Amino acid sequence: MDHHEQHLQSSAWLTDIVIGMSDGLTVPFALAAGLSGAVSNTNIIVIAGIAEIAAGSIAMGLGGYLAGKTEADHYNSELKREYEEVELVPEKEKEEVREFFQNLGLSEEIQHQAVEEIAKDKKVWVDFMMKYELGLETPDPKRATKSALNIGLSYVAGGLVPLIPYFFISTPIDALKVSVIVTLICLFVFGFFKSRMTGINPWSGALRVTLIGAMAAAAAFGVAKLFEH
Amino acid sequence: MDHHEQHLQSSAWLTDIVIGMSDGLTVPFALAAGLSGAVSNTNIIVIAGIAEIAAGSIAMGLGGYLAGKTEADHYNSELKREYEEVELVPEKEKEEVREFFQNLGLSEEIQHQAVEEIAKDKKVWVDFMMKYELGLETPDPKRATKSALNIGLSYVAGGLVPLIPYFFISTPIDALKVSVIVTLICLFVFGFFKSRMTGINPWSGALRVTLIGAMAAAAAFGVAKLFEH
Repeated sequence: MDHHEQHLQSSAWLTDIVIGMSDGLTVPFALAAGLSGAVSNTNIIVIAGIAEIAAGSIAMGLGGYLAGKTEADHYNSELKREYEEVELVPEKEKEEVREFFQNLGLSEEIQHQAVEEIAKDKKVWVDFMMKYELGLETPDPKRATKSALNIGLSYVAGGLVPLIPYFFISTPIDALKVSVIVTLICLFVFGFFKSRMTGINPWSGALRVTLIGAMAAAAAFGVAKLFEH
Repeated sequence: MDHHEQHLQSSAWLTDIVIGMSDGLTVPFALAAGLSGAVSNTNIIVIAGIAEIAAGSIAMGLGGYLAGKTEADHYNSELKREYEEVELVPEKEKEEVREFFQNLGLSEEIQHQAVEEIAKDKKVWVDFMMKYELGLETPDPKRATKSALNIGLSYVAGGLVPLIPYFFISTPIDALKVSVIVTLICLFVFGFFKSRMTGINPWSGALRVTLIGAMAAAAAFGVAKLFEH
């Protein structure tokens, strides 16, 4: 069960940090790179970068909050509905439980016995329907708030990495060179740990994450150059 | 089963569009708003906005691609592992199947019969472990590519909404006023349909989405103003 445990542990706050840092390292990096090809001093890049980090962290943080809240609301409305259905159309709901056991590949005899055992207790029955008919897990009530903070702060942390060189170097292209080196290293390290967490090959995973960042930055640079003229 | 069907239908491409458009409407909007408080002509806002849309759509699109690929890789590596475990430690794996039925609230007799029926066929057994021990669904092989396109294009579509006023109006604050009105309306309409899709109250959902966009824009405006001086 080792891989199961690992799978579960890595789900909640680590997932949030990965979400926030993925975009935080990539989007402000690409924005700053894009502007470096189009403007002549770093002051405007710093302002745009800071505005983007503020906008992105709040949008993603509150987005995470909203997602958590929506998940909880959705769970509760489906829960109410299942309790009603078990009350109003018990035969139809029993048939759905039976179909579940049928799909597992169990014999008809066991299907019927299992249905009767589950339908004995309404709470067991409804929990079963929630989890295996609808695929919904009981949500953590504090998840929305925690999610918002984790995602938002990770975005800020990630976003400051590519931007910091622009604080100290006044020529955009020179600042860009430092920013590219520092950010690609961070993306590689981040991609390595992210991949190890999700159980894929960390080296190829790290390479993929780094390439995405590099491509986003190159595209932003190219597009901004086009619009400069 | 109406709500179940609905739940399934809305999962794949609609989820992608919601992901892309959520951030597309919010982040470029907030970035443009932030810059409107800090720079004196719209030209730089247009360049920054276009760079952000290019960066964001590529980062999010490729991020979606990577997520799809990672999911598929993860599934395949776990699948291989389960086949090995069923071969090497069948008693341990049977015990895990039994625990699953025990947790459903079934009697010991049914637990054992169900385990024997499932363990008869290795494919059935492994599929069972994948889905109910590890909670993994068989991924769609084209999902990664479709995801990337849906998310990326939705981000571009969403991001152009707040930016278009800056193409036609040369005073940042005047363009911002039009951008705020147009984008908040779009966020409200988008939030309405997004909420209806996920089964929560569409009016309060629409209000939440609109508020997040407004807060992100206000924060970016405030932060950029601070750094202007």
